[in-house]
Amino acid sequence: LTPPEIALHSLLHAGSLTIGTAESCTGGLVAARLTSISGSSKYVQGGIVAYSNQAKADLLGVSTEILQKLGAVSEECAIAMAEGARVALKADVAVSTTGIAGPTGATERKPIGLVYVAVATSRGTQGRELHLTGDRRAITEAAAETALEALLTTVRGELAERTET
Amino acid sequence: LTPPEIALHSLLHAGSLTIGTAESCTGGLVAARLTSISGSSKYVQGGIVAYSNQAKADLLGVSTEILQKLGAVSEECAIAMAEGARVALKADVAVSTTGIAGPTGATERKPIGLVYVAVATSRGTQGRELHLTGDRRAITEAAAETALEALLTTVRGELAERTET
Repeated sequence: LTPPEIALHSLLHAGSLTIGTAESCTGGLVAARLTSISGSSKYVQGGIVAYSNQAKADLLGVSTEILQKLGAVSEECAIAMAEGARVALKADVAVSTTGIAGPTGATERKPIGLVYVAVATSRGTQGRELHLTGDRRAITEAAAETALEALLTTVRGELAERTET
Repeated sequence: LTPPEIALHSLLHAGSLTIGTAESCTGGLVAARLTSISGSSKYVQGGIVAYSNQAKADLLGVSTEILQKLGAVSEECAIAMAEGARVALKADVAVSTTGIAGPTGATERKPIGLVYVAVATSRGTQGRELHLTGDRRAITEAAAETALEALLTTVRGELAERTET
């Protein structure tokens, strides 16, 4: 199986689309995997690791309403992070992650392993809820893998759309 | 030997100082290592992976003069990135990396493995030039390790300063 960052490189190395990331629970893993590929600077604009709520608000424009009423671990926050990253990084497509990697930080309604991933394009944003298992490392690595796969699926769709029109 | 991110956690878990990152060639590795520690959200504000020059200018405030005259791979750029990250992330201490991880991207005056690391505090910013060897992965991992060690040294100094005054 081809890792998604390599499949993305094959699709994007000519510079047809640019990408960016907004990461909370994965803490930079998604950006690190994307930029592990030589030549990725052609299409990776950059990423924002928004670990604190302040960074989510200041750098990604996540609203106080989302952060206070729904919390940073919510699909709405993931969607706002991805949309904010598109704007801040001037990227065509942006992916976000937010969740509870554990072992601390769980609440009654938000257990360890609850992660939201979202991908934003000019045509809209799709969020997804994940329930991951394992230790902190397993959860963050699975969240990064899922985020990269979601990014790849969306990039394929965007490129297909462009070919059709 | 204790990894620097664990030593940083021991020093900072009580929340006395906050930290942030601005990464180019390490692409998120420094932030990923800092946030691999449970409880790091107490002191990691976040990070900016500024892979493109546009991201370096827009998110970190690196001047056009630095980017055009000295280039993104320069000590001046590393210093501006660290200082920009402190402001953007509202962090007490910020570390930056910029360099040529290879295998492409080298020029006559800037060989593969040339990396600059800088650490900014309210009292000033220190830059350092590194000459690293190995493949892309070895260079980025060594750059991340050096950045984390530099951050740890600076944090120790800051905490000592605070104790003295």
